[in-house]
Amino acid sequence: MAGSTYGELFRITTWGESHGEALGVVVDGCPAGITIDEDRLNEYMARRKPGQNKYSTPRKESDRVKILSGVFDGKTTGTPISMVTFNENQRSSDYSEIASYYRPGHADYTFDSKYGFRDYRGGGRSSGRETLARVAAGYIAGCLLNELGITVTAYTKSIGPVQIDYDRFNEADIMNSPVYMPDLTASAEAETYLEDMITKKDSAGGVVECVVKGLPAGIGDPVFDKLDAGIAKAVMSIGAVKGVEIGDGFAVAKTSGSVNNDSFTCEDGNVRKLTNHSGGVLGGISDGSDFIFRAAFKPTPSIASTQHTVNKSGEDIDIEIKGRHDPVIVPRAVVVVESMAAVTIADMLLKGMTATIDGVKRFYR
Amino acid sequence: MAGSTYGELFRITTWGESHGEALGVVVDGCPAGITIDEDRLNEYMARRKPGQNKYSTPRKESDRVKILSGVFDGKTTGTPISMVTFNENQRSSDYSEIASYYRPGHADYTFDSKYGFRDYRGGGRSSGRETLARVAAGYIAGCLLNELGITVTAYTKSIGPVQIDYDRFNEADIMNSPVYMPDLTASAEAETYLEDMITKKDSAGGVVECVVKGLPAGIGDPVFDKLDAGIAKAVMSIGAVKGVEIGDGFAVAKTSGSVNNDSFTCEDGNVRKLTNHSGGVLGGISDGSDFIFRAAFKPTPSIASTQHTVNKSGEDIDIEIKGRHDPVIVPRAVVVVESMAAVTIADMLLKGMTATIDGVKRFYR
Amino acid sequence: MAGSTYGELFRITTWGESHGEALGVVVDGCPAGITIDEDRLNEYMARRKPGQNKYSTPRKESDRVKILSGVFDGKTTGTPISMVTFNENQRSSDYSEIASYYRPGHADYTFDSKYGFRDYRGGGRSSGRETLARVAAGYIAGCLLNELGITVTAYTKSIGPVQIDYDRFNEADIMNSPVYMPDLTASAEAETYLEDMITKKDSAGGVVECVVKGLPAGIGDPVFDKLDAGIAKAVMSIGAVKGVEIGDGFAVAKTSGSVNNDSFTCEDGNVRKLTNHSGGVLGGISDGSDFIFRAAFKPTPSIASTQHTVNKSGEDIDIEIKGRHDPVIVPRAVVVVESMAAVTIADMLLKGMTATIDGVKRFYR
Amino acid sequence: MAGSTYGELFRITTWGESHGEALGVVVDGCPAGITIDEDRLNEYMARRKPGQNKYSTPRKESDRVKILSGVFDGKTTGTPISMVTFNENQRSSDYSEIASYYRPGHADYTFDSKYGFRDYRGGGRSSGRETLARVAAGYIAGCLLNELGITVTAYTKSIGPVQIDYDRFNEADIMNSPVYMPDLTASAEAETYLEDMITKKDSAGGVVECVVKGLPAGIGDPVFDKLDAGIAKAVMSIGAVKGVEIGDGFAVAKTSGSVNNDSFTCEDGNVRKLTNHSGGVLGGISDGSDFIFRAAFKPTPSIASTQHTVNKSGEDIDIEIKGRHDPVIVPRAVVVVESMAAVTIADMLLKGMTATIDGVKRFYR
Repeated sequence: MAGSTYGELFRITTWGESHGEALGVVVDGCPAGITIDEDRLNEYMARRKPGQNKYSTPRKESDRVKILSGVFDGKTTGTPISMVTFNENQRSSDYSEIASYYRPGHADYTFDSKYGFRDYRGGGRSSGRETLARVAAGYIAGCLLNELGITVTAYTKSIGPVQIDYDRFNEADIMNSPVYMPDLTASAEAETYLEDMITKKDSAGGVVECVVKGLPAGIGDPVFDKLDAGIAKAVMSIGAVKGVEIGDGFAVAKTSGSVNNDSFTCEDGNVRKLTNHSGGVLGGISDGSDFIFRAAFKPTPSIASTQHTVNKSGEDIDIEIKGRHDPVIVPRAVVVVESMAAVTIADMLLKGMTATIDGVKRFYR
Repeated sequence: MAGSTYGELFRITTWGESHGEALGVVVDGCPAGITIDEDRLNEYMARRKPGQNKYSTPRKESDRVKILSGVFDGKTTGTPISMVTFNENQRSSDYSEIASYYRPGHADYTFDSKYGFRDYRGGGRSSGRETLARVAAGYIAGCLLNELGITVTAYTKSIGPVQIDYDRFNEADIMNSPVYMPDLTASAEAETYLEDMITKKDSAGGVVECVVKGLPAGIGDPVFDKLDAGIAKAVMSIGAVKGVEIGDGFAVAKTSGSVNNDSFTCEDGNVRKLTNHSGGVLGGISDGSDFIFRAAFKPTPSIASTQHTVNKSGEDIDIEIKGRHDPVIVPRAVVVVESMAAVTIADMLLKGMTATIDGVKRFYR
Repeated sequence: MAGSTYGELFRITTWGESHGEALGVVVDGCPAGITIDEDRLNEYMARRKPGQNKYSTPRKESDRVKILSGVFDGKTTGTPISMVTFNENQRSSDYSEIASYYRPGHADYTFDSKYGFRDYRGGGRSSGRETLARVAAGYIAGCLLNELGITVTAYTKSIGPVQIDYDRFNEADIMNSPVYMPDLTASAEAETYLEDMITKKDSAGGVVECVVKGLPAGIGDPVFDKLDAGIAKAVMSIGAVKGVEIGDGFAVAKTSGSVNNDSFTCEDGNVRKLTNHSGGVLGGISDGSDFIFRAAFKPTPSIASTQHTVNKSGEDIDIEIKGRHDPVIVPRAVVVVESMAAVTIADMLLKGMTATIDGVKRFYR
Repeated sequence: MAGSTYGELFRITTWGESHGEALGVVVDGCPAGITIDEDRLNEYMARRKPGQNKYSTPRKESDRVKILSGVFDGKTTGTPISMVTFNENQRSSDYSEIASYYRPGHADYTFDSKYGFRDYRGGGRSSGRETLARVAAGYIAGCLLNELGITVTAYTKSIGPVQIDYDRFNEADIMNSPVYMPDLTASAEAETYLEDMITKKDSAGGVVECVVKGLPAGIGDPVFDKLDAGIAKAVMSIGAVKGVEIGDGFAVAKTSGSVNNDSFTCEDGNVRKLTNHSGGVLGGISDGSDFIFRAAFKPTPSIASTQHTVNKSGEDIDIEIKGRHDPVIVPRAVVVVESMAAVTIADMLLKGMTATIDGVKRFYR
């Protein structure tokens, strides 16, 4: 029931409903001495902000995140970092109708089943707005990782049938693409596809890919707390994610061992892999290669076309969901994936420090 | 670092190395009064046993699991259930060579990176034999679920390029197929494919699918401890799994909202869905439909053909792994997937009991 | 390091420094449907407020706690309840001097040892003001317990050498005593003692006692998560507590088994105890009697008289701590003890619901 | 309900009933490379063994503990260490009568209340024999601590009215005293007292004191996971403990701040305290002084004299508990206290490593 805390040593606790007073997160366990800047935090937050282009909802949300504790003289103190953003634009009247029925593809029915009633305003706790807290936490985790030479980079791999071409891959273009694709040709095609979906009052899904660089070998624990198992939970916990895969992912089911095994080699005294089908993890522990994973997002469930459902009186009805909604979740979700990865890896890194006495020293210069 | 415990209320802790004295599991938190039979436990265990047919390794392992605590007069007492199996067939000499190098696709290198050294005998803690403890725990969880009318059924969906045809799906055939496929035609094709892999000294991957029936709506928590997030971690924590998907999974990335949304309807006063693209979960909470997920397994990394790697002295070498190994992991992994699902759902069910005050009050009548 | 979260099913996470922007708490896992009133919350908070009488510091703190999430239409929704109070009266200049040295009896030195630096303003995270968040959480827990017929009542048992006389015990007088003693005669004596301490620029300690009524038998778990073990941690985690005891407590060390054992008897078909030396717990599980425990508080470490210490440059110095401070912590700590007990019992109650299969089945009717 | 796991990074899980097949513990999270010797483990275990002298029960228990996993070539591998001892002397017939009634001072009634039934043989899970698993885990924790220069030493401070005199304190005498007192004069007096109790068919309580030396400043977390709070839970979770106190403990309630505050001074560039009323902890974090705490044990509840109670049919009856029982728990509990302290401190040390980047290096030479 208490499902709003994630992580053990680097631990985040989120709270808040879409149209309540505020949303926020408490980040506990961040080591002391990490430099944190509230303005940069808000620049990072802007990546999930709505209303940035025509593929994201025009609702205005100020979303300024304020740090209320745990940072002193510009550095983390080792005590909990509380961050909050107040909801300024909530107009509950917009949402009064949805109190009476269960929207297909949403959590209205399951919340009522679980709790007996729900905060129906804008999706309440199950709104995508909940991810705001994850991203604020992800920023803090990212600051810690960056000080250790680790970077986490997510981007859109595909939207509907449009997929990036790795021959055109350019990391710098991620921020130049309105849909965060590192391939501007695919990005333009995706835009065309989304225009079509808007016209049809329909929505699209897609895939987010994430690459972690600089992760030393030895992170993640055997058995249940594997690095990839942790990532799988972290990423699957993002609303609308229906699949997670590591390295070659589902494709490994059709390949053979002789192709899939990555050979080791020694370069300048360091063990390296000649290929990276594994996506940087072996036996649940990082192997020193790039750690790579993907998440599949379903199409936005809120669509403008007519849908069939039931109301709370048990009557079958047809509904049309009013208001404008993102025709695709993926672009705004990119930074959410990045954030959940950063939090997960920060937590595992801190745990990894205790694996060997010798190993402790390895992670800190 | 302490990564051998899984679950919060229904909590399992596993231990043991492939070629150590014994392996085992402690199941803590199982409610009192559940009927447990040691013989049936061992019948369940037999599903992951090696040496059952030509696609599994002929090594003999006795694998008799003994219950050492927590069961009295045939029923669980509410205290920890300790189960153990002693290793009778370990011949460390078989494995002495692998101490000196890092097998591709295995965790040899990552264990050394993490801990400074490793128990190299038969894979030690990262051996597939570790799953024995998961299956023993899964049996206990399954007994609890069955008393509540919930069943968990896993089977092989595909091996290499061979996939079951749902038109021929027959649950009863799962146990009649040497590769646990509910489609005997596909099963025969898979056998032919595996023969070919054996001839080529290569190995195959595949996909396991799992269906949970009887799960009431309302199980799973919003945000981080979603039902699907829990399953994603549980299943990704099984060695060799590289992808997990729920319901339509990765396919949702290419579909549209109008197709993917499941309409609700009312039948005999009960809310039902007309389709089940969601795989039984909305907003991380069970929706009362069948809960369906899949896991992608990589090909067995131990193959007989020559592979390139490095030894512990940092020299590039070519190796041939001796001994016979399963040409495919999938069939023996079916019951492991089923077990991890059962444990996860048992834990979430117990947590779900505390979601409403109504449930609380009932406890005191 | 992440030590600001307490509880598993009923889980609280606190944050905030004495002189930062704000302090708060997130209560996760409270069942849905509990009536919560923000005004009553603030009445409860008033019991730990400073400046209520001459034995508490005259610093003004507004301490209005606001509920930001998790309550809808006056009832808990089952999602996290975030509560916050903004610091309005922080004057950092008051505290600039203490940045340079280590106050005896305070955590200045240990924070610097752990984190390398500290937020020195008013004690930062180690300030008694941190307990504000505990009390807000305790109010929510108390509302849950009250709906189940359980009450938690703490009071001052002694201040310095002045102890209540149980022959004069009157629960109603707790709120009539400026030091929260249920014996107004002792209360007057304690006031005289405190006047003397103020004159001497010194401070006093004392003992808080707490009684939980209405707790059914069967709460708490064997072995590590015993009811009394949980309370011991919860109460010892309150700043300035140096001892915790259950029932007859330390006195049992000198008694004999024939005296200390509580005989059982049967009254109207119910099992009862003829005495309650155990304080309501046997084998770590509640026995249906009143659950009784005590906490010993040390004298306020901030005293006005001259003290010896070292500064951050490693020089031995004499200091006089400026500002006015409570001559005794105990009266304001009473509600903190009550709150930690309420949170602990709420958590254990929710866990207790899953102890028997009978309870499980009830969930599904 | 799942209450048999303790610790987060250094985590122990115990299992087993007094008269079941076996008892054991899984120690997960111990760093790799610690030297472990099974013979020394069993020497350590011998300190809680029954039948060593006339004040402990003459029942023979072999209690040989065997290590089944996690140790390879004499060193910990970083994976779970499973230890087990088989029960060889269980004679269930000795205990058949107690199935029918509730022994005063025991957990018979509370187990039945919680679980609906219980394993009544020899106390089942609530037997003092459960501590065997704690001691085995404590040995492992102690090995880790010793490699870091930390020692944990417990001893008997008092039995009934007989207390050690610190002027005669001699640590070396602990092992020379049949009741583990570091004062042989007091030890002899305690023996006389116990003889008297045996004659009277009665039993005695007492106090165990524990001193931890070599603990660096900075261990323990602010707020809930304070060093002293962790110890309080760990020690109160030992059966028969009714009180825990740190440093001056309950005596602080009657002293004054000017006396109780420990002044800091600087010696050879190191910060030291002139006194140690705090018992080595300030604000929940170790201050570099000896960490000192005490636990009060109740008299053995099993006494030979007639007692009043009820049977399971609800009838009031008089009983006489057969068999011989320890007239005092304290001497055998000394090593249990030491073990729980070692486990707690090992866990906190590993957590403390993550508190600051700088701090990580501090704990390992």
